[in-house]
Amino acid sequence: MLNPQRTIDELKELRSLTGNDDGAQRVAFTPVWAKARQWLKDKLAALPVDVKQDPAGNLWATLKGKSDKTLLIGGHIDSVPNGGWLDGCLNVVAGLEVLRRIAAEGTPPITIKLVDWADEEGARFGRSLFGSSAFSGALVPDDVRDLTDRNGIKLADAVREHGIELHRALEAKNEQQHAAAYLELHIEQGPVLESRGLPMGVVLGTFGVERHQITFTGQAAHSGSTPMDKRRDALAGVSRLHLKIREIAKQYGGVCTVGSVKTEPGIVTAVVGQATMTLDQRHLDAHSLAKMLADAKAYSELVAAEENIAVEWKTIWRIQPFPFHPTLIDLGDAAVKETCGQSHRLPSGPLHDAAEVCRTGIPTVMLFVQSLRGISHNKIEDTKEEHLRLSVQALDRLANKTIEWITRG
Amino acid sequence: MLNPQRTIDELKELRSLTGNDDGAQRVAFTPVWAKARQWLKDKLAALPVDVKQDPAGNLWATLKGKSDKTLLIGGHIDSVPNGGWLDGCLNVVAGLEVLRRIAAEGTPPITIKLVDWADEEGARFGRSLFGSSAFSGALVPDDVRDLTDRNGIKLADAVREHGIELHRALEAKNEQQHAAAYLELHIEQGPVLESRGLPMGVVLGTFGVERHQITFTGQAAHSGSTPMDKRRDALAGVSRLHLKIREIAKQYGGVCTVGSVKTEPGIVTAVVGQATMTLDQRHLDAHSLAKMLADAKAYSELVAAEENIAVEWKTIWRIQPFPFHPTLIDLGDAAVKETCGQSHRLPSGPLHDAAEVCRTGIPTVMLFVQSLRGISHNKIEDTKEEHLRLSVQALDRLANKTIEWITRG
Repeated sequence: MLNPQRTIDELKELRSLTGNDDGAQRVAFTPVWAKARQWLKDKLAALPVDVKQDPAGNLWATLKGKSDKTLLIGGHIDSVPNGGWLDGCLNVVAGLEVLRRIAAEGTPPITIKLVDWADEEGARFGRSLFGSSAFSGALVPDDVRDLTDRNGIKLADAVREHGIELHRALEAKNEQQHAAAYLELHIEQGPVLESRGLPMGVVLGTFGVERHQITFTGQAAHSGSTPMDKRRDALAGVSRLHLKIREIAKQYGGVCTVGSVKTEPGIVTAVVGQATMTLDQRHLDAHSLAKMLADAKAYSELVAAEENIAVEWKTIWRIQPFPFHPTLIDLGDAAVKETCGQSHRLPSGPLHDAAEVCRTGIPTVMLFVQSLRGISHNKIEDTKEEHLRLSVQALDRLANKTIEWITRG
Repeated sequence: MLNPQRTIDELKELRSLTGNDDGAQRVAFTPVWAKARQWLKDKLAALPVDVKQDPAGNLWATLKGKSDKTLLIGGHIDSVPNGGWLDGCLNVVAGLEVLRRIAAEGTPPITIKLVDWADEEGARFGRSLFGSSAFSGALVPDDVRDLTDRNGIKLADAVREHGIELHRALEAKNEQQHAAAYLELHIEQGPVLESRGLPMGVVLGTFGVERHQITFTGQAAHSGSTPMDKRRDALAGVSRLHLKIREIAKQYGGVCTVGSVKTEPGIVTAVVGQATMTLDQRHLDAHSLAKMLADAKAYSELVAAEENIAVEWKTIWRIQPFPFHPTLIDLGDAAVKETCGQSHRLPSGPLHDAAEVCRTGIPTVMLFVQSLRGISHNKIEDTKEEHLRLSVQALDRLANKTIEWITRG
């Protein structure tokens, strides 16, 4: 029988074992992460499952079913430094509870696998989704081999200490075989469910992201001796584009953020000669994302012309949207409604391992449970225990519905 | 007979003596500055003048006239590090030429004094107008005593090496006695005269300045998971206020500058939680300056309310406007017209020693000569030699007109 309270007890056990006064410290490829993994393996030892690590460091627990067709339930036990007690591990531990419940009922109609992805956060080397992108095949080992942590240790050397040979990491793709669906539960990490007073929602997909650095170049000039109509104020580009991207976000229903502004020479007595801003745009629809970017670029050029300054764009990073599977979204919606009374469909702003699984074409969906104050990646990250219990139940219901859907073919 | 070419030759001589490949190095209270001063004293030794240093380190060369009433001609031989060949010393050297011309014609009807103010730039200790503010009485010795340079040397100790006892600096006020007018020639350090194709103009006064730091505080939030309508974006305060102060400047005919913006946490994936900007507002009219500040404050509060963020103002520095003497402005205008054919009346954005003299009530005016590209405080600071020659002539004409005006009483 499913015991959602046990999930909470186990999450607290994991917190005691791998956290300190500053929060969770389960940074991937460190001794604390290895300790968390060993804790998980000890739990799995009590179940009739086969446990193994794939060539990218992902940990798989397989409960053989009557069919090779496989339901994947995934999460990540790694955290950021000084992280929260739920980000990533909630689904691993909730998935463990669902696996227990299914195993207790005898051989399931299909195979069930619980996967703990390696290094979702990328906190040590700056490359997130390491294990799941090896699984999807998107990882390019040569691009990450020489990434170094703050102590100068290379990624390739750090992962070797945990049994991973980087040149073999893409062999994790073999785990795609027979996979028929992927489920992931996660805290929302945003304010939407809390503001609507809802415990849970079903996720429509992960946003595509356009991330750019934009530099406006005018002419530094004395703030006293330069009349307003003689100025080429680089900061005008930033201020006008910042206000414009807020309109663009509303127009297309996405999100746009200017997170950083730098001014040169950056002194009180000089007109800004060069101003650099970052822009982060996200949307669930690839076409709308492209339009948001195009509109921002066009406006930046209009402003540059009007202000007699130059503008230059540099791409920092981009990823396409990953819309989840329509049937699984419906099943997730039904599972949340049956569990909580009400559901809500929402996109995910942050990326998740589910995006990499979705990339392969495996039908994918996520469930979100409410985050208090929308805060994560911080020790004050929290969710009401009553909501955590509901989330284990909803994941279990969704697993059952998905098994039935897969079995039906 | 006036020899304007000699002024150019002497400026070049001074440049060779006290500059290097990076520009002028006549930082006040340094050995190079002392060398420049000695060079000036050597030039003055050929004239029938009495030379002395006052208790604030200002150098005075007095040509006794038939009356004690005194015309002051001033400038500053000190420069910023890596400075230009004209900022400050142009008027000292042009004034020297005017003094030569007057002395060559016999005892003048009134007394003429050339003054080289000590440390106009404040480049070493961050306190500009040192000598002239001692002359005006505005200097507070206890406020500057413990200012230190980058080597930790205190101002009080540095000036002592050049014969100045800080506690006696305000005795320089005695030099105000008999002063009937003050004239100062300077490069414009701005783009106005060049853009109008004019060699010279007469200065209406120095701008009053309101200099503030403004901090907007919202809430840092994840750029992916936080919908636009849930954000409290501190940067919105900066962008909106920056665009507004440009309108305010145009409305009142002053200048307003946002020179620096800082963002916290300042990362591409987070909404800005705290944004800090500087604001520098300048106007020749005290009432308009106060209105510009009040309008900016009111708008910042409106924006803060609309954006659900907080705003806090902190004064960095302020000074009132110093409008020059109407009759002397007319005389300056006439002198420039007679010399160059055309004149232009313009305010001074940068401060000058003339502001401190004006503060005492002594009738004051300045002449500006065109700056190429509006650039100063840099080794590429320059003015056409033909314009420099005109400026010596115009200063000479203005000196004559002023002597006549003072003599008439």
